[in-house]
Amino acid sequence: MAIRYIDIKQEVLSANDGLANKLRVRLKEHKTLMINVMSSPGAGKTTLLLDTIQRLREQLRIGVVEADIESMVDAEKIEQSGAMAVQIRTGGDCHIDAPMLKPALDTMNLDSVDLLFLENIGNLVCPAEFDTGATCSIMLLSVPEGDDKVLKYPLMFSVCDAVVINKCDTLCVFDDFSKEAVAERIRKLNPKAEIFFLSAKTGEGVEAWAGWLSDQVRPWQEE
Amino acid sequence: MAIRYIDIKQEVLSANDGLANKLRVRLKEHKTLMINVMSSPGAGKTTLLLDTIQRLREQLRIGVVEADIESMVDAEKIEQSGAMAVQIRTGGDCHIDAPMLKPALDTMNLDSVDLLFLENIGNLVCPAEFDTGATCSIMLLSVPEGDDKVLKYPLMFSVCDAVVINKCDTLCVFDDFSKEAVAERIRKLNPKAEIFFLSAKTGEGVEAWAGWLSDQVRPWQEE
Repeated sequence: MAIRYIDIKQEVLSANDGLANKLRVRLKEHKTLMINVMSSPGAGKTTLLLDTIQRLREQLRIGVVEADIESMVDAEKIEQSGAMAVQIRTGGDCHIDAPMLKPALDTMNLDSVDLLFLENIGNLVCPAEFDTGATCSIMLLSVPEGDDKVLKYPLMFSVCDAVVINKCDTLCVFDDFSKEAVAERIRKLNPKAEIFFLSAKTGEGVEAWAGWLSDQVRPWQEE
Repeated sequence: MAIRYIDIKQEVLSANDGLANKLRVRLKEHKTLMINVMSSPGAGKTTLLLDTIQRLREQLRIGVVEADIESMVDAEKIEQSGAMAVQIRTGGDCHIDAPMLKPALDTMNLDSVDLLFLENIGNLVCPAEFDTGATCSIMLLSVPEGDDKVLKYPLMFSVCDAVVINKCDTLCVFDDFSKEAVAERIRKLNPKAEIFFLSAKTGEGVEAWAGWLSDQVRPWQEE
């Protein structure tokens, strides 16, 4: 009799992938484009989403699933912006996977959402490994973190469709951050990724990012 | 027959704890104090260690175990400072545990190290769950990440012996960061934690931190 070999991680990942695919099909049926937003803690995900909602709220109905280990401070900010917000509390887990996301989607009327952001846990490692059912993944890197993060967390920079470099208004203070070096490192790992340099705080550069988002939603709704 | 229940996470954690305790005893025999340094990516762990090494190198023999998913850029910087550096490459893992650390310690002559820093993976979640064998744990939060991180990553702020707030030279740019609010939130979770406000880049406030470190090492060597 052959020895039975159970790879727990592989089992977990493939169970997750099956459900993630189901969620993706369901979102497509409702013409809801879900975007998985990942970054380190404090890179500015919520601030960017608030600015993005302001710019796109006239043309798109936007929802946000906020994932946090604890606290609801971000969901409260999103709700004040007028977008629909749902909070997931992971209670310790370091990433969001499809089984955690499903109950949040179950509470939403997806027919009234064109663009759904999933604001993942602040973490450059684990979220990159789990398919959530999102069709598009975004990685936010902030200038204060340094341009070497691409070298240190390569999977995260490889799995995303766009990299947003945030807090560019602080380049004067963090003068060892090289825009050229970071772009070159990203392109080496992920040649197709779009790269945006912006400041969610001052709004500089956010228009190009919001335009790109609109372009992602349009074909999704027409198909 | 009773159903056998295997809690994988509990099994992993208790196997880890057993080895972590063995490593702690071994370090004590060699009078080496190991400090686990944790933070988000880019909070400034390496820069702080470089400044700390400069200040303490005359009185203490210092070593650093650098843990990274990929790349050796930090270990190279530490080596140039004259301290002993060992690199652990996790190849994807999001934290350091005792089984990963043991081979690094095996390569070192611990009798020639008084103070050993473990620079953990940049991550505010998973590293807080794993005992590495360190006697002292430090959490580094940088001003650009925001003062609300204590609310969102409470375990990390609960398990550490000291919290270092770094990049205080950028408080003029990040003027929504409140030193009072962050200190109050930390004290609520972890009343015994020492709190240092400093800038590893300008050196401001680093002296008090280095003094505290010396105070941790002294009794450890005398016992």
